[in-house]
Amino acid sequence: MAASALLKSRIRRPSYLNKLAKPEDLIDLFPHGTSIGWSGFTGVGYPKKVPTALADHVEKNNLQGKLKYDLFVGASSGAETENRWARLNMIERRSPHQVGKEIAKGINNGNIKFFDKHLSMFPSDLVYGFYTLNKPKNKIDVAVIEASAITENGGIIPGASVGASPELVQMAEKVIIEVNTASPSFEAIPDYVPEDRIGTSYIPIDPEKVVAVVESDYPDQTLPNSPEDETSQAIATNLIEFLKHEVNHGRLPQNLLPIQSGIGNIANAVVGGLSKGGADFKNLKVWTEVLQDSFLDLFDSGNLDFATATSIRFSPDGFKRFYDNWERYAGKLLLRSQQVSNSPEIIRRLGCIGMNTPVEVDIYAHANSTCVMGSRMLNGLGGLRRFPPKTDPTGVSCIVPFATHIDQTEHDLDVIVTEQGLADVRGLSPRERARVIINKCSHPDYKPILTDYLDRAEFECLRKGMGHEPHLLFQAFKMHQNFQEKGTMKIDSWE
Amino acid sequence: MAASALLKSRIRRPSYLNKLAKPEDLIDLFPHGTSIGWSGFTGVGYPKKVPTALADHVEKNNLQGKLKYDLFVGASSGAETENRWARLNMIERRSPHQVGKEIAKGINNGNIKFFDKHLSMFPSDLVYGFYTLNKPKNKIDVAVIEASAITENGGIIPGASVGASPELVQMAEKVIIEVNTASPSFEAIPDYVPEDRIGTSYIPIDPEKVVAVVESDYPDQTLPNSPEDETSQAIATNLIEFLKHEVNHGRLPQNLLPIQSGIGNIANAVVGGLSKGGADFKNLKVWTEVLQDSFLDLFDSGNLDFATATSIRFSPDGFKRFYDNWERYAGKLLLRSQQVSNSPEIIRRLGCIGMNTPVEVDIYAHANSTCVMGSRMLNGLGGLRRFPPKTDPTGVSCIVPFATHIDQTEHDLDVIVTEQGLADVRGLSPRERARVIINKCSHPDYKPILTDYLDRAEFECLRKGMGHEPHLLFQAFKMHQNFQEKGTMKIDSWE
Repeated sequence: MAASALLKSRIRRPSYLNKLAKPEDLIDLFPHGTSIGWSGFTGVGYPKKVPTALADHVEKNNLQGKLKYDLFVGASSGAETENRWARLNMIERRSPHQVGKEIAKGINNGNIKFFDKHLSMFPSDLVYGFYTLNKPKNKIDVAVIEASAITENGGIIPGASVGASPELVQMAEKVIIEVNTASPSFEAIPDYVPEDRIGTSYIPIDPEKVVAVVESDYPDQTLPNSPEDETSQAIATNLIEFLKHEVNHGRLPQNLLPIQSGIGNIANAVVGGLSKGGADFKNLKVWTEVLQDSFLDLFDSGNLDFATATSIRFSPDGFKRFYDNWERYAGKLLLRSQQVSNSPEIIRRLGCIGMNTPVEVDIYAHANSTCVMGSRMLNGLGGLRRFPPKTDPTGVSCIVPFATHIDQTEHDLDVIVTEQGLADVRGLSPRERARVIINKCSHPDYKPILTDYLDRAEFECLRKGMGHEPHLLFQAFKMHQNFQEKGTMKIDSWE
Repeated sequence: MAASALLKSRIRRPSYLNKLAKPEDLIDLFPHGTSIGWSGFTGVGYPKKVPTALADHVEKNNLQGKLKYDLFVGASSGAETENRWARLNMIERRSPHQVGKEIAKGINNGNIKFFDKHLSMFPSDLVYGFYTLNKPKNKIDVAVIEASAITENGGIIPGASVGASPELVQMAEKVIIEVNTASPSFEAIPDYVPEDRIGTSYIPIDPEKVVAVVESDYPDQTLPNSPEDETSQAIATNLIEFLKHEVNHGRLPQNLLPIQSGIGNIANAVVGGLSKGGADFKNLKVWTEVLQDSFLDLFDSGNLDFATATSIRFSPDGFKRFYDNWERYAGKLLLRSQQVSNSPEIIRRLGCIGMNTPVEVDIYAHANSTCVMGSRMLNGLGGLRRFPPKTDPTGVSCIVPFATHIDQTEHDLDVIVTEQGLADVRGLSPRERARVIINKCSHPDYKPILTDYLDRAEFECLRKGMGHEPHLLFQAFKMHQNFQEKGTMKIDSWE
């Protein structure tokens, strides 16, 4: 196959040019039951050509449910690939995170075996062989990795995300590389070691494992940002007020500690608030998993000195702004593998200010980040969507007596923030914690309901000598039951 | 005050001899509301004289409930001190762990504000000032630390535990040192840095903070070991079988990875099993929080090369054996602060085999380690007691549909072991996990009950498109309710 001049300029390893292939010629590498790794994280840097060719093949030949794969991606890939695979019933197993209506549907109707996992542990457990226990060599079969360029020694320079690609390459028997020429080469940005920029700027690979190289010309399919709403701005205001308070009391330095924001509206509002904070927070640093558009504003405000993540997930406008001003931003950011960006080891050592956006938090500070009503998976640990729209506009309280699924325990939460206020629960016993959370964070419609629960639970449990964390265990989900039956969590009584 | 020759031999800082005091003369340092830190971890290395003098003072003068203190200890101290304080209503607040009937009673009847916390995070949050938010200087008032000796520069050489003493000393405005002459000096053993033995062998301290030095002549009040029972031996056998299997498949090296055992019967049985394993496991290393008697056997078997912990909690016979053979053991073990011994950063990096003994585990692999029936505190995160005796000998299943309190989530458990068998849930989706846990780990009496729950939950949730982790949410605690009402978890039906 002949390579374009642009493609040649990206592939500095000549032998790879002999492996150029069309994606539709690679179908035979993917028999039913193949375990596959893709690059990608938060919808950027995922392979586009090979997954699309496989989906076309299934669609054209009516192979729905007959070609099914185990699919491992660092986090989410693009909707037009994994979501389409889900619609075509091509996914047998998926880990550790996903985004997309069809894939969530497949998980929740039992079609897809999904397990979520700490995003930093996923690559190490993969390398330990924990996810390929039944494979003869304890390996995955094929990794399909998007590159923005290839080095002389055949190494992969990823695009807008690093994710789990280093470990997927390491654990794959065969590797297919999609070289994406629709975006610039990211060579100046990535790094792959915990310390400062001292690693390689590419993912090392044994070139003999590379069975094909495919040119790709689709950019990452990201969406425009949804505008900040009043709720997320109120949450951001409450949180920034608290950070100022901690600085004033000497418990945080003037430039805070490295910020670890989540993803979505609320994270955007918080980061936006730091840009607008003027002189309040200077010389900030960011240690997080994904950079959204608001970080470009934070860079431009002059308040942000450096940011590191495993993925850059800008909107189409944000990517244009980033590429047009490459020189301004590229020296101030670093992409690392998710094993590093999400590592509890490093996060603890840096003392990061970790922020997360759960589905619900209970009065004792246990948080549910993944499963609505205890059962319905949203995206998996580490990322989430808001509750669906409701008939009663205040029919859902995110503060509940007992979280229906627990991803983060009471032992890990210091501060809970809602649009109503901020509960600082550091050093508080569970019963003190519950009063503070109800008073500061719950919506006025639910304050009496939750207070009544707590009063009754305290009365019942204290007299039985089991009042450390008082619950009416057999009524703990009554608000959820009421919501399921009547569309609102507002119950008449706990009787 | 005159010092005995033995005491003088332990205190190499002459100025401290001028600070010698009787404990009963120190009462005025402890007005109502004082926040106090004690040394100690798992019932060894705690101060004995000053706490006893304060308790005597309260008892003699009928001050129960009138002198109450915030009490911070790395983990548990001795029953004759903190348990007595609880009985005399002297504890207002307690963290992060405790052992003792009276203190558990005080927590569960609402008298003591207790919060449990990861034992490694407790010292760092203490140093961040999170537990002294309302104190003027963000400090604790007095630390009472047991030493086995004092260095020339006034540093403290702890006894059988290090725990949180370094951070308590750092955060205290005043320090009282109890020099215990009933046990040998531990100078050769401790260390206080993450790396190998490169730190100091003492806890550095500003000598001006030392307001008094007290001679102590009580040894740590530990109890004899309870004998291994059939259940714990069956658990140990299942676990060791699994470790052999992982070695055979190349996922663990021949000498395993550093072992992190819990405390109690089951941990003793596992460690005992490794001693008896003969040639199976050689050159073992241990990275754990507390060493029990069984580790002496493991050293003697020749299979254990090195062990590190934050506490040595032997039985009285074990301590005798240890002291009598000091030369044999001392070079092979190291005590570190609990911030290090329990650090997730280091544990992850070393790849420790972490073992924990929960109260109950649910079918999706969430574990409850602290609160019976969701509300009644046992000991706090990181240590536990078995369920209380029952009317129906098999009336309690430790495998339940939904854990009534969650301390470890599904995202962190790889393997569940009971006396029935071992469930390897690595890489499994929740529904697969549930089948394996029920089949391998549940008692035969409960297998049909739990299977019925899962079948019904799958049926209900899958048809509603919320079947990722199927639950009958509003019946999830029915087995617990039945236990509370009828003394057995064996329900007739889920209808």
